[in-house]
Amino acid sequence: MARKLYDLAGADPQRRFSPYCWRIKLALAHKGIEVETIPWRFTEKDVIGFSGQGRVPVLVDGDTVVFDSWTIANYLEDTYPDRPSLFGGAGGRALARFVNSWADTIQLGGMIRLVVADIHAHAHEKDKAYFRESREKRFGAALEQVMADREQRLPTFRQSLDPLRLTLKSQPFLAGEAPAYADYIVFGGFQWCRCISDFKLLEPDDPVAQWRERILQSFGGMPGRAVGYAA
Amino acid sequence: MARKLYDLAGADPQRRFSPYCWRIKLALAHKGIEVETIPWRFTEKDVIGFSGQGRVPVLVDGDTVVFDSWTIANYLEDTYPDRPSLFGGAGGRALARFVNSWADTIQLGGMIRLVVADIHAHAHEKDKAYFRESREKRFGAALEQVMADREQRLPTFRQSLDPLRLTLKSQPFLAGEAPAYADYIVFGGFQWCRCISDFKLLEPDDPVAQWRERILQSFGGMPGRAVGYAA
Repeated sequence: MARKLYDLAGADPQRRFSPYCWRIKLALAHKGIEVETIPWRFTEKDVIGFSGQGRVPVLVDGDTVVFDSWTIANYLEDTYPDRPSLFGGAGGRALARFVNSWADTIQLGGMIRLVVADIHAHAHEKDKAYFRESREKRFGAALEQVMADREQRLPTFRQSLDPLRLTLKSQPFLAGEAPAYADYIVFGGFQWCRCISDFKLLEPDDPVAQWRERILQSFGGMPGRAVGYAA
Repeated sequence: MARKLYDLAGADPQRRFSPYCWRIKLALAHKGIEVETIPWRFTEKDVIGFSGQGRVPVLVDGDTVVFDSWTIANYLEDTYPDRPSLFGGAGGRALARFVNSWADTIQLGGMIRLVVADIHAHAHEKDKAYFRESREKRFGAALEQVMADREQRLPTFRQSLDPLRLTLKSQPFLAGEAPAYADYIVFGGFQWCRCISDFKLLEPDDPVAQWRERILQSFGGMPGRAVGYAA
């Protein structure tokens, strides 16, 4: 197949945990576009060197190479305009950028402190030293120390989801009656955690948990079947 | 004129400070719809009793009475579809709900602790006891005490705007190339503070401050001319 997606994997090549890659896997499913996903590890910079940078997702679509999840989503929307829309119009595309910014800062920033040592535990052997060193430098603390007070952090993390929760009390999906890219952006973070950690992020009766469950069951249950832990 | 908007005012009837009313005043300007604004005080519940509830904004449009800013915005979009769109399509409308939820929880929740005693200072004499009692009950502390550590709270408040800031680094308005309802939602909070407090919320070189300035100058400078303090 000419279409390939480089997709972050752990020691188990079927454990695919990048939140950014999940955004794109669901965006491709939404558009009904098939892709071969290629397991990739943090330290395989040379493998994606052709993209001119060192992070995934990288999409190779025929002769076109695109990286960065936001750029890929826009590429898919513009290149396949006859497939179901990821944004629901110009207004939706502009505001999906706000959702993307919220997810990248508040959601993922809160999540990583809850699961960072679990990522290390599932990383490929050749990635472990790189992952530990780069993240410990970022946090100025050992991974285990960053995660040590996660039970105490949990209420604050859950509260940080209030904008999402309040929205999902009025409509079934961020994008309205049906899911679209804004949902995949935020779901990517939950799927990231689920794929590498058994830490329970949400109470079952939380509207956010119920929305997550709806996405897990979407596309014939594809996201729910991914290698990971029960949500 | 048959169209009226009940609009929260302070001791000075021209000091109009409700963040929710500002959302609607800008939405009406965006659609080019004229309206007579009627100064209203917190305790004048009987004046808007015809709406079946006790808060503003309340819009009277001919025979139609609409309250709640989100409901009014949707009413305007659906009733005046030939005027410039507030949402830019179905996707934009759904995600504006997320922006609305973010503003109501994170933005306004952070702001009120920075300016609550300033609101009291500008409230109409007949509102002061009601305002103090209801808000002190909510916060479990004297208004002056809630606001006492605002200099210390400021860095956290500014950081809470990161999703907004990051978005505005990539596009001039939340709604994209031109402002729309999502911008008015968030601007309403800044205008609320500006109308009743001289406390400086933002550094001048903050992309958020620059965006606020663009909205202050929109509609011929109407929002910037409102009675209040320099932003």
